[in-house]
Amino acid sequence: MSKLLKKIIAATAISAIVLTAVFMNLNKNSTSVAAESPKAATAAITAAPKYVFLFIGDGMSYPQIQAASDYLGAVAQRRDSDILTGNKYLNFMKFPVAGSAVTYDSTSFCPDSASTATSLSTGYKTYSGTINMDETNTITYETISEKLKKQLGYKIGIISTVNLNHATPAAFYAHQASRNNYYAIGLEMIQSNFEYFAGGALKNVTGDDETKPQADLYELAEQNGYKVIKTQDEASRLTAADGKTIVIGETLADSGSLSYAKDAKANEWKLKDYVKKGIEVLDNDTGFFMMIEGGKIDWACHANDAGSTIADTIALDEAVDEALKFYYRHPSQTLILVTGDHETGGLTIGYAGTDYDTYLTNLTNQKLSYAKFDSDYVKGYKENKTPFKDVLADVKKNFGLLTQYNRTADANSKLVLTAYEYDLLKAAYNKTMSAGSTERNQEEYILYGNYEPLTVTITHILNNKSGINFSTFAHTSLPVGVFAKGEGAALFEGYYDNTEIYDNLANLLKVK
Amino acid sequence: MSKLLKKIIAATAISAIVLTAVFMNLNKNSTSVAAESPKAATAAITAAPKYVFLFIGDGMSYPQIQAASDYLGAVAQRRDSDILTGNKYLNFMKFPVAGSAVTYDSTSFCPDSASTATSLSTGYKTYSGTINMDETNTITYETISEKLKKQLGYKIGIISTVNLNHATPAAFYAHQASRNNYYAIGLEMIQSNFEYFAGGALKNVTGDDETKPQADLYELAEQNGYKVIKTQDEASRLTAADGKTIVIGETLADSGSLSYAKDAKANEWKLKDYVKKGIEVLDNDTGFFMMIEGGKIDWACHANDAGSTIADTIALDEAVDEALKFYYRHPSQTLILVTGDHETGGLTIGYAGTDYDTYLTNLTNQKLSYAKFDSDYVKGYKENKTPFKDVLADVKKNFGLLTQYNRTADANSKLVLTAYEYDLLKAAYNKTMSAGSTERNQEEYILYGNYEPLTVTITHILNNKSGINFSTFAHTSLPVGVFAKGEGAALFEGYYDNTEIYDNLANLLKVK
Repeated sequence: MSKLLKKIIAATAISAIVLTAVFMNLNKNSTSVAAESPKAATAAITAAPKYVFLFIGDGMSYPQIQAASDYLGAVAQRRDSDILTGNKYLNFMKFPVAGSAVTYDSTSFCPDSASTATSLSTGYKTYSGTINMDETNTITYETISEKLKKQLGYKIGIISTVNLNHATPAAFYAHQASRNNYYAIGLEMIQSNFEYFAGGALKNVTGDDETKPQADLYELAEQNGYKVIKTQDEASRLTAADGKTIVIGETLADSGSLSYAKDAKANEWKLKDYVKKGIEVLDNDTGFFMMIEGGKIDWACHANDAGSTIADTIALDEAVDEALKFYYRHPSQTLILVTGDHETGGLTIGYAGTDYDTYLTNLTNQKLSYAKFDSDYVKGYKENKTPFKDVLADVKKNFGLLTQYNRTADANSKLVLTAYEYDLLKAAYNKTMSAGSTERNQEEYILYGNYEPLTVTITHILNNKSGINFSTFAHTSLPVGVFAKGEGAALFEGYYDNTEIYDNLANLLKVK
Repeated sequence: MSKLLKKIIAATAISAIVLTAVFMNLNKNSTSVAAESPKAATAAITAAPKYVFLFIGDGMSYPQIQAASDYLGAVAQRRDSDILTGNKYLNFMKFPVAGSAVTYDSTSFCPDSASTATSLSTGYKTYSGTINMDETNTITYETISEKLKKQLGYKIGIISTVNLNHATPAAFYAHQASRNNYYAIGLEMIQSNFEYFAGGALKNVTGDDETKPQADLYELAEQNGYKVIKTQDEASRLTAADGKTIVIGETLADSGSLSYAKDAKANEWKLKDYVKKGIEVLDNDTGFFMMIEGGKIDWACHANDAGSTIADTIALDEAVDEALKFYYRHPSQTLILVTGDHETGGLTIGYAGTDYDTYLTNLTNQKLSYAKFDSDYVKGYKENKTPFKDVLADVKKNFGLLTQYNRTADANSKLVLTAYEYDLLKAAYNKTMSAGSTERNQEEYILYGNYEPLTVTITHILNNKSGINFSTFAHTSLPVGVFAKGEGAALFEGYYDNTEIYDNLANLLKVK
């Protein structure tokens, strides 16, 4: 039996197999297609799912997924047993198909979110920073979401924990030479007429150049028929009858994004709440496509904050659970895909200083994200020239890290700073408090990236004492997992180029 | 359609579907089985493959695979194009099924090769360091290879680039509380009566206690009917008619292992040659099972030597190609599995100092493995108190790294040491040349592990300048890829516990 036939059989109910066509992707821009990819041929099958969820964990690959899974296992481990009982599987890890996608773009093996989301939404490679345009910035690519709306009449939902005109969500409706054209991206968002946007605030809402303010994007959205909602109360009352809607989080955090899962208040809407509401307003007999981005997994990994990475990965999985509830009501008509765009941070569960051991429960001591520590604490330290001793008290309170001076007799010794670690933290404090705190020589850049030296050193030390490490403040070339469940899931088996995620989706959904 | 049925359909030709039985793994040691694993139920199908290849890249997970793939792509990249053409797929990356297996053992999320190979060969978790026994060291587990020999009469081949009584090969025939019982493991190897062993020399061939020598294992092997071969000439003339055979590499390297692929001479037998010969001598109408370990991927990763890691990963893939040639002659009767036991080194393609860039072609300048540099150069430096200037000349010759003093005007500037890197190298040289060179404080342990400071700093700098980093000298918790092609391949889809690799194999092959 051919591989093609196997894929089709696994992707459809046997009784419903009707082969209609086999599309070979021959018409693609030849400069931007991988010649080597092992799955160049894909198949159209008859049973196109009506309801498609595409979850993208920005910066989420195997390390982020396994770290969250191991963390949950470590927290649940029985203390009275010497036998490790292992990880707890996230919902999407249990999907029947778990393939891998290669993420390089036309610029680098370590690609960015604009180009990789372009690959997912259009099937093309392009340069880092570019959204749905080719390498010459002359050809514009139509996205899977635009095609589904135009060709099949599917309703479209775009949800992100970061700004709705940030690279990943933008790649489903915008076409720009630069991801930094936030205002132009916002205009395209408004013109998309997609039914449901939800997440972080629009960036550069009155233009990219502060000195030349332009019309407010929210006002333009309303003029174009969008209902713009900025409170949870209004959001909770939203129904499909309200028409096209943009829902902005009531509580906003760094750069206008939604809060890190670790920082969110109990009653604050989380990613799963926006997905649940999205299902309510988008559900219809023709079909819908929903892209849901866990955007702050990436931000946490950039900052090398393992605790926040894990919490936001779990939050993404809780959002997947909402899609699963819908799936169980429409199992033969629904496809759920969960993937990442690239890996961020070079996260490893394992560190030179801890050898074969991990101490993942140490991370339970982290009470807030690096970003909230920056805004709620470090800003004040700089203004008030707070002495190191007082900073250490906050480090103890918020991250559980102790020193020989402020530890108690019964404290977890794995959380007590060694002399080496103490010196690293003191040097970082000095750098943060110094006049030239943003300047970096090579050693400092490797240690701190462009982050606040004090904060990133705190998370580095807590990560390392937990048995976790990051190797970069940027992205890496690790493939991402592609988890699939439902109608057509088997198309996503194997190890292939990320452009094939689009190819398979387009063929499955029969859009061109 | 149920997940189970889907798996069966995808695993067999439709016309041949005969459901014979569904085995639920209910009888396993309850203390050592993951409760959470999403694929507890597996299926027996009718068409059991006659010929099974199980390739294990020791320490090989997604980072090692993608690094080799990206490296091949970087080397092949056209210099006159600004558009990156991406990675080159290894043979096994193109397999139709590429799942993931979780590797934790009863000791740690960062498990060792003894326990993980136990999981692959018996379906049980156990403590790190233990081979095919339970956590109390009272229950002995029979291995897949023993069962196949005993129950089905399959011929068995065990091949490794490291010592044949090292943990991974041992886990297919031995049962020992400690992987360090090399002599006892060697005795079990001889008693296994497996048809074909090939690879590195036996370790502790006259006993684990040098002061109490015991009978030579090779002599005992010959007494038990094994033909022991130690030259390539004899190996090349070996046929099935020679009976049970142990083939030891003619050229041996560190610890009696086969050479790193990077160090092997042109006419020296490589892993693929031992596989090719194995196919010749094991091929028979009843069936065979061959386990092939790329053991030095792990050793190279422990030492944070990216160049050797990549070369040995490619060498493993070349060995897979031999299995593929056999597969194409017996496509409906062959199953090829390629997996790892765990990830080693926390390898990342991406590094804090290089941001979104990689310079993988820098690695082409590495002429030998860290181990060969240790033996051929560093040993002499210590004896001769070689000055740093002369060492730098060797570093230039063997790794391509230059200094401001010995660079030429047209040299690749990406290979010139910065002041920061020069200082790191000088400090490492001083440490290597010092009286207390094997003592380590915390900072030194993080920098050097237990490796030669000079050598590991050279590879660190070359790695980092290539855009690669390692985060540990030990193992990590990253899942491993499970690549499957041939009869029953679809059973290995998804993200599941490593014990299920055994479960699926045993059910597929109908052994108990």
